[in-house]
Amino acid sequence: MGVENKWHFNLQRRYRTGKLNKITDVPGVKVGHLTLQQGDDNTGVTAIIPAPGNLFKQKLLAGDKVLNGFGKTAGLVQVDELGTLETPILMTNTFAVGTCLNALIDYSLKDNPDIGLTTGTVNPVVMECNDGDLNDIRARHVTEANALSALAAAQTADPNFAEGGVGAGTGMTCMGFKGGIGSASRTVEIAGKTYHLGCLLNSNFGFFGNLRAGDFLIGEALRNAVLDRAKQEHNPKYTRYLPDKDKGSVVMVIATDAPLSSRQLRRLSTRTSMGLARTGSYSGDGSGDIAVAFSTANRIDHNAQSAYQVEVLPDSLLDDLFQATVETVEESVLSSLVHAKTTTGIRDNTFYSLADFLQ
Amino acid sequence: MGVENKWHFNLQRRYRTGKLNKITDVPGVKVGHLTLQQGDDNTGVTAIIPAPGNLFKQKLLAGDKVLNGFGKTAGLVQVDELGTLETPILMTNTFAVGTCLNALIDYSLKDNPDIGLTTGTVNPVVMECNDGDLNDIRARHVTEANALSALAAAQTADPNFAEGGVGAGTGMTCMGFKGGIGSASRTVEIAGKTYHLGCLLNSNFGFFGNLRAGDFLIGEALRNAVLDRAKQEHNPKYTRYLPDKDKGSVVMVIATDAPLSSRQLRRLSTRTSMGLARTGSYSGDGSGDIAVAFSTANRIDHNAQSAYQVEVLPDSLLDDLFQATVETVEESVLSSLVHAKTTTGIRDNTFYSLADFLQ
Amino acid sequence: MGVENKWHFNLQRRYRTGKLNKITDVPGVKVGHLTLQQGDDNTGVTAIIPAPGNLFKQKLLAGDKVLNGFGKTAGLVQVDELGTLETPILMTNTFAVGTCLNALIDYSLKDNPDIGLTTGTVNPVVMECNDGDLNDIRARHVTEANALSALAAAQTADPNFAEGGVGAGTGMTCMGFKGGIGSASRTVEIAGKTYHLGCLLNSNFGFFGNLRAGDFLIGEALRNAVLDRAKQEHNPKYTRYLPDKDKGSVVMVIATDAPLSSRQLRRLSTRTSMGLARTGSYSGDGSGDIAVAFSTANRIDHNAQSAYQVEVLPDSLLDDLFQATVETVEESVLSSLVHAKTTTGIRDNTFYSLADFLQ
Amino acid sequence: MGVENKWHFNLQRRYRTGKLNKITDVPGVKVGHLTLQQGDDNTGVTAIIPAPGNLFKQKLLAGDKVLNGFGKTAGLVQVDELGTLETPILMTNTFAVGTCLNALIDYSLKDNPDIGLTTGTVNPVVMECNDGDLNDIRARHVTEANALSALAAAQTADPNFAEGGVGAGTGMTCMGFKGGIGSASRTVEIAGKTYHLGCLLNSNFGFFGNLRAGDFLIGEALRNAVLDRAKQEHNPKYTRYLPDKDKGSVVMVIATDAPLSSRQLRRLSTRTSMGLARTGSYSGDGSGDIAVAFSTANRIDHNAQSAYQVEVLPDSLLDDLFQATVETVEESVLSSLVHAKTTTGIRDNTFYSLADFLQ
Repeated sequence: MGVENKWHFNLQRRYRTGKLNKITDVPGVKVGHLTLQQGDDNTGVTAIIPAPGNLFKQKLLAGDKVLNGFGKTAGLVQVDELGTLETPILMTNTFAVGTCLNALIDYSLKDNPDIGLTTGTVNPVVMECNDGDLNDIRARHVTEANALSALAAAQTADPNFAEGGVGAGTGMTCMGFKGGIGSASRTVEIAGKTYHLGCLLNSNFGFFGNLRAGDFLIGEALRNAVLDRAKQEHNPKYTRYLPDKDKGSVVMVIATDAPLSSRQLRRLSTRTSMGLARTGSYSGDGSGDIAVAFSTANRIDHNAQSAYQVEVLPDSLLDDLFQATVETVEESVLSSLVHAKTTTGIRDNTFYSLADFLQ
Repeated sequence: MGVENKWHFNLQRRYRTGKLNKITDVPGVKVGHLTLQQGDDNTGVTAIIPAPGNLFKQKLLAGDKVLNGFGKTAGLVQVDELGTLETPILMTNTFAVGTCLNALIDYSLKDNPDIGLTTGTVNPVVMECNDGDLNDIRARHVTEANALSALAAAQTADPNFAEGGVGAGTGMTCMGFKGGIGSASRTVEIAGKTYHLGCLLNSNFGFFGNLRAGDFLIGEALRNAVLDRAKQEHNPKYTRYLPDKDKGSVVMVIATDAPLSSRQLRRLSTRTSMGLARTGSYSGDGSGDIAVAFSTANRIDHNAQSAYQVEVLPDSLLDDLFQATVETVEESVLSSLVHAKTTTGIRDNTFYSLADFLQ
Repeated sequence: MGVENKWHFNLQRRYRTGKLNKITDVPGVKVGHLTLQQGDDNTGVTAIIPAPGNLFKQKLLAGDKVLNGFGKTAGLVQVDELGTLETPILMTNTFAVGTCLNALIDYSLKDNPDIGLTTGTVNPVVMECNDGDLNDIRARHVTEANALSALAAAQTADPNFAEGGVGAGTGMTCMGFKGGIGSASRTVEIAGKTYHLGCLLNSNFGFFGNLRAGDFLIGEALRNAVLDRAKQEHNPKYTRYLPDKDKGSVVMVIATDAPLSSRQLRRLSTRTSMGLARTGSYSGDGSGDIAVAFSTANRIDHNAQSAYQVEVLPDSLLDDLFQATVETVEESVLSSLVHAKTTTGIRDNTFYSLADFLQ
Repeated sequence: MGVENKWHFNLQRRYRTGKLNKITDVPGVKVGHLTLQQGDDNTGVTAIIPAPGNLFKQKLLAGDKVLNGFGKTAGLVQVDELGTLETPILMTNTFAVGTCLNALIDYSLKDNPDIGLTTGTVNPVVMECNDGDLNDIRARHVTEANALSALAAAQTADPNFAEGGVGAGTGMTCMGFKGGIGSASRTVEIAGKTYHLGCLLNSNFGFFGNLRAGDFLIGEALRNAVLDRAKQEHNPKYTRYLPDKDKGSVVMVIATDAPLSSRQLRRLSTRTSMGLARTGSYSGDGSGDIAVAFSTANRIDHNAQSAYQVEVLPDSLLDDLFQATVETVEESVLSSLVHAKTTTGIRDNTFYSLADFLQ
């Protein structure tokens, strides 16, 4: 497992990877995909269930950061105000946000007959990227049933979930290659305790030529190889895209079992930009770069009627988690690229797999 | 027309009201309602079309403010980043946000065949309150067709649109009374020019006893009259609600034809809290109090390929617009209350019209 | 004691006032003034010591809100990031911020020989208003020694500290009257426990005619009385100011012994705008309206080397603290006005005491 | 001139550097240093004068971003609210912020006799890092006269100003090496026009081993060489620092003559984090990483009495400026390192010049 071992990127890892080197190394985190791939449809939904049990009744602390807000992620207003996450997180394409919101409401109402009656409402979180380069996004084919299937899949899925062009990543493109779902994890020792931190992201940003990893300026190095193949295969996409700019987006989820406050989780979310930068991103104008981080260490009782204790690490001990965040974002982007397979979609657009050029 | 003239509140107006004393006094602004009111359904959609023409192609400058983020308003991430509004704004109930997002995408795709193909995606803005006190919100009866009907209604509606328990305000309650849609407007002279500023809001906040207007501590004054009627009518809602806390939400739209930047429109949005305070609000924990302000003075070309000029007022001349914002929010809340009729909804809950007690 | 009892404003208090109805009712909070009043100097420094002991070593949780950022308050960047307060808070005039920062560094270095050597630096918090209407602010007469005197005074001061034109309030003006330091407090019962919440502010905002309190539109009611006196006394200030706009600023400190997180303290800070609105403010363009709130319930160990527990109230139980914040801000403004005495300053400007007109 | 040409880092520059490859390539920008270096003093002040003429009367549009707020930069509250810069920017050590604020007030009052009298006050901007590793920061030796000297020096200085351990950079350390002032610039073509963008920063962040540039993992590569020298020279600092964490800070100024709004300048400021990341930073807990960006293209008249035009580029054309920001921040950090000379300061701490190891 792992990007570096297989692909020999020199990523300067400072922390051990988790067992699977995926976000599911954080105990309790589950991931499920629903992939729609036929005809011009190259899209889907990826569900992240952040912890077991009833999330609405036993919320998680959470923080987020909008690195560049050219995006339609829904649910952050309340995360910012209350510092809690009370539903799973769904990732999907830009025009399926509404449908996925509806699905999360369905999902939450089913388990909580009091919502909207004797208690308030529920705040679903849905993150998105535009997969229009490979998917007929205007057709809006994702259904509530699809989203609920992704949630159901997460409940029973193998922790060693698929990466690349699956689920919400099916139609995504990144740095001129095929992108999509990527994940990585680290274990960090703080004050004698071992904590896990994982990232799952949907990569759909950047432009060809900028891609880099550690001491490898990938885009520059592969320029001719990619262009040669595009020419040979009469693939117009590359010629057309070469002079183009950063576009798309990347949405990121950071999970940890370290005890952090919502303010500290926001600090983690902020560091995701530095992981993106290590892969060559500069957060282009049109890139909706958004991160949500949660901790599984404290559960916040929806019905709490008196003061309670929250366990938190001192801010002065967060550096390892900050750096682990940067490392997992960097590696998740690369992992999405090496796992995604060359894909042809709408209008015969073809995006190559980075893996094709590294072997 | 107008709250003060009819109800004799001493609102200390510093500016003339517009012709209709509604947001439609701002040239180009249109409002339409779709009301769902049968059985346990007391809900709907209100559409605000901020300006004529293709909003996606010719955007408006906009700014927003989350006064208290216990809310699910969607679309603010991009408004914050880019400072523009590119769709109409829909108001609805909390669980219809996803459906209204879908409707706005439909609406935008129809007029813009390039969205998702040769250009990026579109950012719909949907604002919400929880109408669960009168509406079977869990049933999620609002459809995309309903939302599109509200948009269609706005195109042809009488500028003198209905207020109170209509559209998105059908099931809302405010300060222990029946709430809903309220609107007001002012004309302001700045540097020799006349500008219009209007507010439209959906009132669903506060608790009985706190309501005030100018020098009239309404809630306190009406306490016994309301309780007597509740007792006489065997209305359990009031007895139950009396010791209760602020809840619900209020979502607000401020429109103006004054030339303002997105930063300045954000400053206007911030002042809405002071209008709410004048009516007795303290922004309770569970109240999602959110404002979006836009200016019709500049249109931002989606396809601009070179630098352009934006006209703005000096910040030192904004005080009249700030105060007009406070005044219109205050009066819009009161207008929603006096126009809403006594309504019985789900579980036989009854909320009285404030008007019943002022005559 | 207390504004309402003496002045018969109908403030609709929902909570009992503290023993002194001042911020010093919050156990551990101390306040000291240094007043400079001779010749054209009408200025000073007010020190708020938020809790006993070494604040740098045992920090307090804190949150702030910039309601309108036309202000020069220093220290908020770090409060926002780390959620802690590690020095006393000084209030002063706009051009004495630097000098007061220096004084707080002196003050902190003396007690902490490790600062700048084996540990990091210290973040002083200084808040300001422009007292240029009565003070020769350009002369910059406040010294580090003055600021240290205010801090020393706070250590030994009577909890029943003076309000009105003292300390940082010496030269301030508010709503066309003489303003300055005002304070108020409430006791709130939550989940069977009694908590204290207090406000101290320096009032320097608003314009004549807008002042209100409860059901008393003060400015409107006193208009002729004030104008008559101004005419009689050949006081040009009033004639000149009457058509003028909101200006100045108000800086506010909210203290509580309720156990709140920095996020929650930020929520309290946000509600201060609603207290200001009740007195007639609309946060004018030139008004730097800024609040800092702290809780004395948790102390954060500067040298913590492992995870610790923080006690917090559920957000759903914060409504009483929100409303108490609104009430204490409202009453503090009024208290500043009734305690400030008619004052003549630079250029023979005279600002009347509101008290002169209420007797 | 230029880091890359001399040091052969492969920085993947996408844009031409300006004539001097410094922030002074942006027409009108001036930089001056005041260096205090004797005994245990290793500190100073660097002044950036952003444009000619009276800045208070003819302000610049500006935006800022706090990447990590463990810092004491003053003046951002008002920049955020009003989007303007009205004084030069001073950089200095953490405990000299107050003194530099005072100096900027002096500087502004001298040219503007109306400040504090017939108009409001002035908002000085001072940025800081902690130079306590080499400087006796507790002694607070920087004076107002020093700061005014830096401002005076800027007025007459050679545009080809010194970098490294000069001015505010005298005592700074970065990535385990001697740090300080660094600068770089780019020229960018947008819509047929040529714009300049420059960065000046004071580098004082990061830890040894993390430093990187392009495809050169510098820290890793130089590890043994640095350790050997430290051992040979009995320099305890390195042995002690090796296991240490990121600390210090970096403050950055971005200047451009491209016509940008304050919102867009904030977007530029946000991208500075990605330039830092390219050099190995992860924004450690204790690192106050703060950027201010300004544009010289529009001047905002302090006394404007009617609406005016502001020229702005479409956001869709900002990508080149974003990427130029990332490039200049990256190169400025490296430039600060190669220009700073090996320095011994307080407690005989020695920090080596990176240049010593690259030749």
